[in-house]
Amino acid sequence: MPETIPADSVGLIKPQTMHFDQPLELECGRALASCDLVYETYGQLNAARSNAVLICHALSGHHHAAGYHSMDDKRPGWWDNCIGPGKAIDTNRFFVVSINNIGGCHGSTGPSSINPESGQPWGPDFPMVTVKDWVNSQARLADRLGIKRWAAVIGGSLGGMQAMQWAIDYPDRVAHAGVIASAPKLSAQNIAFNEVARQAILTDPNFHGGRYYLHDTYPRQGLILARMVGHITYLSDDAMRAKFGRDLRSGRFHFGFDVEFQVESYLRHQGETFSRNFDANTYLLMTKALDYYDPARYFDNSLVKALEATTCKFLVISFTTDWRFSPSRSEEIVNALVEVGRDVSYAEIDTDKGHDAFLVKIPEYLKLFGAYMHRVANEAETH
Amino acid sequence: MPETIPADSVGLIKPQTMHFDQPLELECGRALASCDLVYETYGQLNAARSNAVLICHALSGHHHAAGYHSMDDKRPGWWDNCIGPGKAIDTNRFFVVSINNIGGCHGSTGPSSINPESGQPWGPDFPMVTVKDWVNSQARLADRLGIKRWAAVIGGSLGGMQAMQWAIDYPDRVAHAGVIASAPKLSAQNIAFNEVARQAILTDPNFHGGRYYLHDTYPRQGLILARMVGHITYLSDDAMRAKFGRDLRSGRFHFGFDVEFQVESYLRHQGETFSRNFDANTYLLMTKALDYYDPARYFDNSLVKALEATTCKFLVISFTTDWRFSPSRSEEIVNALVEVGRDVSYAEIDTDKGHDAFLVKIPEYLKLFGAYMHRVANEAETH
Repeated sequence: MPETIPADSVGLIKPQTMHFDQPLELECGRALASCDLVYETYGQLNAARSNAVLICHALSGHHHAAGYHSMDDKRPGWWDNCIGPGKAIDTNRFFVVSINNIGGCHGSTGPSSINPESGQPWGPDFPMVTVKDWVNSQARLADRLGIKRWAAVIGGSLGGMQAMQWAIDYPDRVAHAGVIASAPKLSAQNIAFNEVARQAILTDPNFHGGRYYLHDTYPRQGLILARMVGHITYLSDDAMRAKFGRDLRSGRFHFGFDVEFQVESYLRHQGETFSRNFDANTYLLMTKALDYYDPARYFDNSLVKALEATTCKFLVISFTTDWRFSPSRSEEIVNALVEVGRDVSYAEIDTDKGHDAFLVKIPEYLKLFGAYMHRVANEAETH
Repeated sequence: MPETIPADSVGLIKPQTMHFDQPLELECGRALASCDLVYETYGQLNAARSNAVLICHALSGHHHAAGYHSMDDKRPGWWDNCIGPGKAIDTNRFFVVSINNIGGCHGSTGPSSINPESGQPWGPDFPMVTVKDWVNSQARLADRLGIKRWAAVIGGSLGGMQAMQWAIDYPDRVAHAGVIASAPKLSAQNIAFNEVARQAILTDPNFHGGRYYLHDTYPRQGLILARMVGHITYLSDDAMRAKFGRDLRSGRFHFGFDVEFQVESYLRHQGETFSRNFDANTYLLMTKALDYYDPARYFDNSLVKALEATTCKFLVISFTTDWRFSPSRSEEIVNALVEVGRDVSYAEIDTDKGHDAFLVKIPEYLKLFGAYMHRVANEAETH
């Protein structure tokens, strides 16, 4: 726990919940009659309501992006490295809104919420949600908060896809889009890894067709395997070599199936921790949202055409050792933006941290990110 | 099935079994009191017994490397692209021996064999075997076949590690070592993928602590997941893109968890087929043999020192898009061999086929491989 709250932290934060009664039409053809969205805000909305920044989370993320919920918290929010007073996303200048997406498992309406029609958890009956659906639900929150136009919509990985979709679907409501460690769509290999994770969950005997809540259990092993496989794709080969190499936990071989290498111990621990804190149905939904994401699909499979409607400025950042969404995937976005004449700033950050780099305190990354956001804040304040 | 046997095939092949009564001491400290080794041979051993080539198999391989077992076989042996009359490993000139390793599930003594002490399948009681152990067992087969020195020991992936170990442990008995799509040891990422596969099997309720034989079942889902994960690492991102891209099985999204993308269907099929044909305990043993392999370990962690004892010539081949054992891993071997002054021929083949490329009919690869083996055959015939 933090002895004291660090000076550059947004401090103790209380999540808020917004309830929506109007049905939300979803891309899958179904609708959510009503839903709750949980979110946090950091900083102050200015009089012109022009300094609001929306943070979109990734696969296993949520609304708690910065600060602490209590003095007992061992760790701050997931993007505390980037959000706070004087940080890249400077809460002295920005009003930051961080949301938990629909389908999530941290308070917003999702598979573990009660389905009003049945009085039981939605489970497998929860509708499939897409990046487009999330953006629409986020727009409703913006309306309620009186935010007509975001100074910036920013996200990493799956969050970057939401930022890109905002720029496409609500061009008048986004001044800047920050697309970090992301891709214009998943590759066959990306989908393949997601499918392994899903199969691990779906075939776990404790999954009970997604109604495990009623059996007072959950697909622990499936979640552990899903996270283990996911985690390998978040780290670079270099980072794993630097972190574990071939180090043995006890210094010698045991010729058995217990942990022998440190990397095995690390992965099992990551998987177990995750399985206790994340809902399996949500994990399934999030991986599908990733698989489905492909804005070009609605524009004759042309990313260029998809981005023609955008009017905002773009910040695109990739990381050299990210092999889940390699720099070349970011360059696809940048090249399409250049082709439609958008103002785009692109940086490829040299690091060994792999895909997870977007969460890490990397001086060059934070400096560059901060410089860009400084410009965004200046623009916002002159509105 | 082949209407007729192709002219460049070794034809119909009958596997043979050699029984060994002398105990085989293993690296784990235990011993196998007796064991069977199943093998196939192609071509004729010459009078000087100087034209014998040993083929070592990889993780899911076996002794059936070339030809057909019956006219009903749909496919020939796993390395039929490289072994046969006039092929890279020319059976008109070489006497080829292909073996199923101890711990395997295709006839050689392994976890599914009967443990003489219990009268039941070995299962989890089968000792852990290593590359060193396999090489020692292969040396015994060589003794029985009257082969004092191999014209070449050749293998891909885990098979290449056996070829390297032969050169280290039996320098007088190997004229050439062919190390293809291999590595001097696994990286943390390689071990991590193996660990995911093992956990999938070990946690499958049908694993029954490895004694599933007695329950008339097997860890089907675990094996499917293990193979799915493995298969992703055998194919390159490029190959997957070329083969599946983001093609949908039915042309549209279904917003459900059934197969939507072709790559999902392909992976599930690969996993299911494998689960019906491979023993889970053998899969566990093979992945551990991979994890443990590290010849430098016995030489102050110096690969150079490990290779000092070698006297044979080396052929090392890597493939540009192989990310399981990338070309840089082969270069570690080549650089160490150059440092100890060995005669080494190295080629990096440009292909999109990934790790599996060593099994594929790639003209440049087969031409280069054939040219090298031509030289090996000439040397063998002048002995």
